[in-house]
Amino acid sequence: MMTTRKEFDHGLELLHNLLVEMGHFVDKALEQSMKALSETDTQLAQQIISEDTKLNQLEHDVTELGSKLIATQQPVAKDLRRILSAFKIASDLERMGDLCVNISKLVIRLDGQPLIKPLIDLPRMSAIVQTMTYESIQSFVQENVDLAYKMAADDDQVDALCAQISHELLALMMENPRNISQASILNFVARHIERIGDHATNIGESVVYLVTNSRPDLNR
Amino acid sequence: MMTTRKEFDHGLELLHNLLVEMGHFVDKALEQSMKALSETDTQLAQQIISEDTKLNQLEHDVTELGSKLIATQQPVAKDLRRILSAFKIASDLERMGDLCVNISKLVIRLDGQPLIKPLIDLPRMSAIVQTMTYESIQSFVQENVDLAYKMAADDDQVDALCAQISHELLALMMENPRNISQASILNFVARHIERIGDHATNIGESVVYLVTNSRPDLNR
Repeated sequence: MMTTRKEFDHGLELLHNLLVEMGHFVDKALEQSMKALSETDTQLAQQIISEDTKLNQLEHDVTELGSKLIATQQPVAKDLRRILSAFKIASDLERMGDLCVNISKLVIRLDGQPLIKPLIDLPRMSAIVQTMTYESIQSFVQENVDLAYKMAADDDQVDALCAQISHELLALMMENPRNISQASILNFVARHIERIGDHATNIGESVVYLVTNSRPDLNR
Repeated sequence: MMTTRKEFDHGLELLHNLLVEMGHFVDKALEQSMKALSETDTQLAQQIISEDTKLNQLEHDVTELGSKLIATQQPVAKDLRRILSAFKIASDLERMGDLCVNISKLVIRLDGQPLIKPLIDLPRMSAIVQTMTYESIQSFVQENVDLAYKMAADDDQVDALCAQISHELLALMMENPRNISQASILNFVARHIERIGDHATNIGESVVYLVTNSRPDLNR
């Protein structure tokens, strides 16, 4: 085994780069999904769905590179946790992309019809979740536990907004049966965004696990 | 390093046992959630929620044991994939448990009120998903790709039932605004069960990846 540490650190840097790329991808996919929703833009929604394969490929790259690092560098303790955490984070990011795909599928179900009300709280919710996504990846790359906790705390706002949105949508349904179909769709969008936030929180848990070797429960 | 192969195989057997235990846990949690739902039994729902920590502990045990095996046995190629697949499967099973918790939380929101209609398709859906869960773990333990594909194909029935249930629930909402609140809750239950099926399908993907070293997309 030659210059193991240097090779390992280089491999780790490549892993970080892949995760940062995945994070940017999710960030953009969420932003675009919300744009597709607010403009009920079926074509944009279809584009988001078809581009998701890139994110799957990136997760695959993380698995390949991490496995190679384990096999050739035989890391232990924290170095091993660095790689195992990268696998778990990549898996969370891939699911976050799937949730953007789910939102886009709901946009397609709207079939280009105008929205029953202008969106206010949903974009607010997704803006918080975009920040959480960015911070979760930064907390991993920097191994910054404080940032992981700060980011996970923001999830409370997301949950509160989601509950409030659900409540308002139920009221709209009661008000007029013609709202029911679209309000149901918007309700699912809110839940998908909430779940993207949960995955960011999972990433925060992985960071705490990596640094402290104990797994907290930031999600409940 | 002494009698590496034997030690490794023994460790792998312990990993399998943990995953089988997690699978049984999810199977039972789903069955009990559906019982809590059909009887709107708040107390049972609370019990399911509080017992979920056991499943989290089992996932933690898989991570610990697998990491120890990687560090001490330095597996490569398929042996490494065996352990990495176990991590991914444990993560899927943990999320399946979380979804049963989500169903139980919805049961609590029903607040003991009788259901607006007897449940027929939801229990049918969850029965298929229970079988899928069992078969997904068996396909991993046996490294049986055929079983993984067969199991994943059953997910189409689950998706079809979910779509049908959503459709019926929307009709109930349109019929009578007093149905809206409960029908929304049942709609979320259906989606949670569908997602448990998606996680079983993910497990099937992990099995195919383990055996063939290429990752299929069984879920789309």
